[in-house]
Amino acid sequence: MDNLPKSEANTTPLTPLTFFTRASKCYANRASIIYEGTTFTWKQTYERCCSLAFSLRALNVARNHVVSVLAPNIPAMYEMHFAVPMAGAVLNTINTRLDANNIATILHHSEAKLFFVDYEYVPKAKEALQLLMEKESTTTLATHTNSYSSNLPLVIVIDDINSPTGIRFGELEYEQLVHNGDPNFIPYEIQDEWAPIALNYTSGTTSAPKGVVYSHRGAYLSSLSLILGWEMGTEPVYLWTLPMFHCNGWTLTWGVAARGGTNVCLRNTTAHDIYRNIAMHNVTHMCCAPVVFNIILESKSGIEPNEIKLKSPVRILTGGAPPPAALLEKIESIGFQVTHAYGITEATGPALVCEWQRQWNKLPKQEQARLKARQGVSVLTLGEVDVKNLDTMESVPRDGKSLGEIVLRGSGIMKGYFKDPMLTSKALCNGWFQTGDVGIIDSDGYIEIKDRSKDVIISGGENISSVEVESILYKHPRVLEAAVVAMPHPKWGESPCAFITLNKNIKGKTEKDVTETDIISYCSKNMSKFMVPKVVKIVEELPKTATGKIQKYELRVKAKGFAVTQYHHILPMSRL
Amino acid sequence: MDNLPKSEANTTPLTPLTFFTRASKCYANRASIIYEGTTFTWKQTYERCCSLAFSLRALNVARNHVVSVLAPNIPAMYEMHFAVPMAGAVLNTINTRLDANNIATILHHSEAKLFFVDYEYVPKAKEALQLLMEKESTTTLATHTNSYSSNLPLVIVIDDINSPTGIRFGELEYEQLVHNGDPNFIPYEIQDEWAPIALNYTSGTTSAPKGVVYSHRGAYLSSLSLILGWEMGTEPVYLWTLPMFHCNGWTLTWGVAARGGTNVCLRNTTAHDIYRNIAMHNVTHMCCAPVVFNIILESKSGIEPNEIKLKSPVRILTGGAPPPAALLEKIESIGFQVTHAYGITEATGPALVCEWQRQWNKLPKQEQARLKARQGVSVLTLGEVDVKNLDTMESVPRDGKSLGEIVLRGSGIMKGYFKDPMLTSKALCNGWFQTGDVGIIDSDGYIEIKDRSKDVIISGGENISSVEVESILYKHPRVLEAAVVAMPHPKWGESPCAFITLNKNIKGKTEKDVTETDIISYCSKNMSKFMVPKVVKIVEELPKTATGKIQKYELRVKAKGFAVTQYHHILPMSRL
Repeated sequence: MDNLPKSEANTTPLTPLTFFTRASKCYANRASIIYEGTTFTWKQTYERCCSLAFSLRALNVARNHVVSVLAPNIPAMYEMHFAVPMAGAVLNTINTRLDANNIATILHHSEAKLFFVDYEYVPKAKEALQLLMEKESTTTLATHTNSYSSNLPLVIVIDDINSPTGIRFGELEYEQLVHNGDPNFIPYEIQDEWAPIALNYTSGTTSAPKGVVYSHRGAYLSSLSLILGWEMGTEPVYLWTLPMFHCNGWTLTWGVAARGGTNVCLRNTTAHDIYRNIAMHNVTHMCCAPVVFNIILESKSGIEPNEIKLKSPVRILTGGAPPPAALLEKIESIGFQVTHAYGITEATGPALVCEWQRQWNKLPKQEQARLKARQGVSVLTLGEVDVKNLDTMESVPRDGKSLGEIVLRGSGIMKGYFKDPMLTSKALCNGWFQTGDVGIIDSDGYIEIKDRSKDVIISGGENISSVEVESILYKHPRVLEAAVVAMPHPKWGESPCAFITLNKNIKGKTEKDVTETDIISYCSKNMSKFMVPKVVKIVEELPKTATGKIQKYELRVKAKGFAVTQYHHILPMSRL
Repeated sequence: MDNLPKSEANTTPLTPLTFFTRASKCYANRASIIYEGTTFTWKQTYERCCSLAFSLRALNVARNHVVSVLAPNIPAMYEMHFAVPMAGAVLNTINTRLDANNIATILHHSEAKLFFVDYEYVPKAKEALQLLMEKESTTTLATHTNSYSSNLPLVIVIDDINSPTGIRFGELEYEQLVHNGDPNFIPYEIQDEWAPIALNYTSGTTSAPKGVVYSHRGAYLSSLSLILGWEMGTEPVYLWTLPMFHCNGWTLTWGVAARGGTNVCLRNTTAHDIYRNIAMHNVTHMCCAPVVFNIILESKSGIEPNEIKLKSPVRILTGGAPPPAALLEKIESIGFQVTHAYGITEATGPALVCEWQRQWNKLPKQEQARLKARQGVSVLTLGEVDVKNLDTMESVPRDGKSLGEIVLRGSGIMKGYFKDPMLTSKALCNGWFQTGDVGIIDSDGYIEIKDRSKDVIISGGENISSVEVESILYKHPRVLEAAVVAMPHPKWGESPCAFITLNKNIKGKTEKDVTETDIISYCSKNMSKFMVPKVVKIVEELPKTATGKIQKYELRVKAKGFAVTQYHHILPMSRL
């Protein structure tokens, strides 16, 4: 039976492009994209992408060339997720909150041939290209020619499709490429599902960005996983609050096509825009980090949180951090249904999802929140997930307390880091991808992350989970956000240092009603002594990445400052 | 980027066994199987399968050996879907309604090493082995030894786990193998996803059975497709009305494991057993051919159809024939929600599913039924589906009327026919699998089957779709079932001949109230003249396959008899 020959009829390569072709045929007249006053159908989107792919080829883009894009969640950004691979090329979406220097580093490392820039980001892109030019030690700006006369990428500006601004940067404009292309272009045929489809740079906080390469197979299977894990049925209306540059929108760029859903694009994720779009288009699904819950709840658009009640439920997939119980209760009370997932760039987005069990509906809200704060079980197409002692590679017992590193394997795991074989083989050694996250397995098989390995605070030999201290801080009625990091300590090696922001929405209370000492005394009453932060700082704002993750690296630098007179020689530098 | 090496961490082979391992970890304590008084959890089922796989290896079952089974939908049948591939072997489930001769042919052709037989089928199995022995020209019955002293398979009887009968056939019994095995057995590692997992003989009505080989990859992707297409969410309770021997239960044997659902096993699919199990276990999903709707509605268990109202909706996936409008309306009125799919053994079960669109809910019931009778759009993991003119290989226009053959390609298509390279290359030629079904594409992209190519009646040069004539017959209030086949005709070449059964549930009406002439006259008023059956036969029962499909081959033989005096030399024999 092994000898039955493979044929074209039974060995189609797995690629998200088949979702798109299928959508263009099965859901031809259904809305694919809605962006303010502009709407497309799946047939139109398909034809636009064929046209764009044609134009990319005409600009000499070839197999495995990198095409970079710096743009918010606009239609062009969505279309490029299909048009670029349809030209045989690899899509590189750049985090729009990176600075010009980071962007230059990515353009340089990826050897991008084309660089699509949304009109809003033209100033930053100009600066990045200037820096890139210095890196490349060349003097010709490629934006004024149609060929690759240098190592600099050709720039294409994306003007707003709904309300054009006329802002240009070089000669080429996105709509013009679509207009000049051929809607009957026959897409580049993917022969090998292991071929690259996307290159995503992780926003490394401590090191140079790493270029994570996704295969067509990995993107395909991960997209299916997320639809299955989130139980996204047919005809979803998906609101793009999560940036598409983040793991290709947790693979939902491709996933919404698989479901023939409608993509509601958003330039800005203000509370006002979110509510307006939900109401206008009957949004059914959206993704965001828990910090966005605050944006939604602390609506600055004149809508009072108490007045909000959604007409029909909107499902939120959240990740990046466990949703704190209080926040979860508030957001669910106004009609959002939250699913918690855990993803990582190297795993092509979500790898674990906290699958809800019906029996939990009978539990008290607080207990439900605790269960939901867990990262959960592996998504369906992941080969395997485990929590292991990395020294012995043995699995930890399912006891809800033994810590180990979360490791993953499966076809959704990246091909590797672009041009970095050393780092690749380190990340993928022993047959597993090592996430760098430390967790436990509960007796029911659900995994909970206790910390990033580098965020664990080791105090007098005790491992303190910064997440655990934070979760207790979150229960304080005045705490809006909390982040705990290691601070050098002359006696214990490290000790916890907490940074918090205060909830200002409580009537009759001012900021001065609560002091740092109050918080420390609250902690003393609510956690083990060795876990109590030695220093608490109330701040106006916590430093965050583009995706809303708190940047603990910056806080660690600050914490080091607070303790500088005391420790000096004691702290192991490697932990910073 | 092509050069990034594959590693164990990112290239796990696709196999349904990962669904099972995952279920044993993520849903360890959830019910996996319920069968009368017997219940297992996923952890228990996993351990039982490890034990059984161990015992299979101990019985010298090796990689790619075929293990056959003749059993109804009992726990053992479900377990073997995992235990057999966990031993590296290939599962061959045999249609229990085949006769001893057919079974002997399958055992001979598949070279089965083991033959599991449910106690109910021991007499038939004995007869089959006798016939096999004659085929093999050997005199040793292998059932009395533990080794392969002949080409005959070793027999293992499966006694009823819930109420053992003590019936034996040879020395070995299923529960004993489970008991003697090792629950910690480490399953055979699937290295290549293209390796075979199952061998399913199509119940060929005109030719010798063909052995359709499924790969692990195909089984995996097809399972995901069906869960997605049917929108089967988490925690389904699946009632096994569809035989598992039919395309491995349309891949749901593996699919229910993927969802961590509960399998409610059934020895007999009587209306009484169906209702009893639905009520006791809160069944959410089941599959069956439309003819089973009649069993459900014409309940012989003392329950009147009018009294039936399900407590909560049960989703039915139906296939094999389009559900007639009247039947659809009746079954949905008592709480079943019907999804229509189209499958074929060679495509590893369902290949098309009639995805329901919300906007259709506003249409009149009759129109909804018409839309639902269509076979629909391709399941998600199928590479592509098309309707083509096989002579030119051109696609037919999406006009709802141009006929062509339905062709499929994708990883869910079989590896090929076992030991039949000629037939394999014929079925998979030109890059497509040719279904032998004739259909159209509507303007919305939905496909509708008009006929099996061999069922099309060619009368005076006109193509008559037998399905179309049947659908009009079904609208007659007294018609319960209808089947139309070609009958030789001296003038027109062929003409339609209808076989019908009558609805006996109508009060105050007897069978004699309606005559064959009445039906012909009804047809004359309701269809084009050339389509009107020249002969109508009212029969007590239509001949059916084990899965409830009407056996048109037998009817064609009968129809030939009716017309025998008239035609003789005219009919092309190839069409019979």
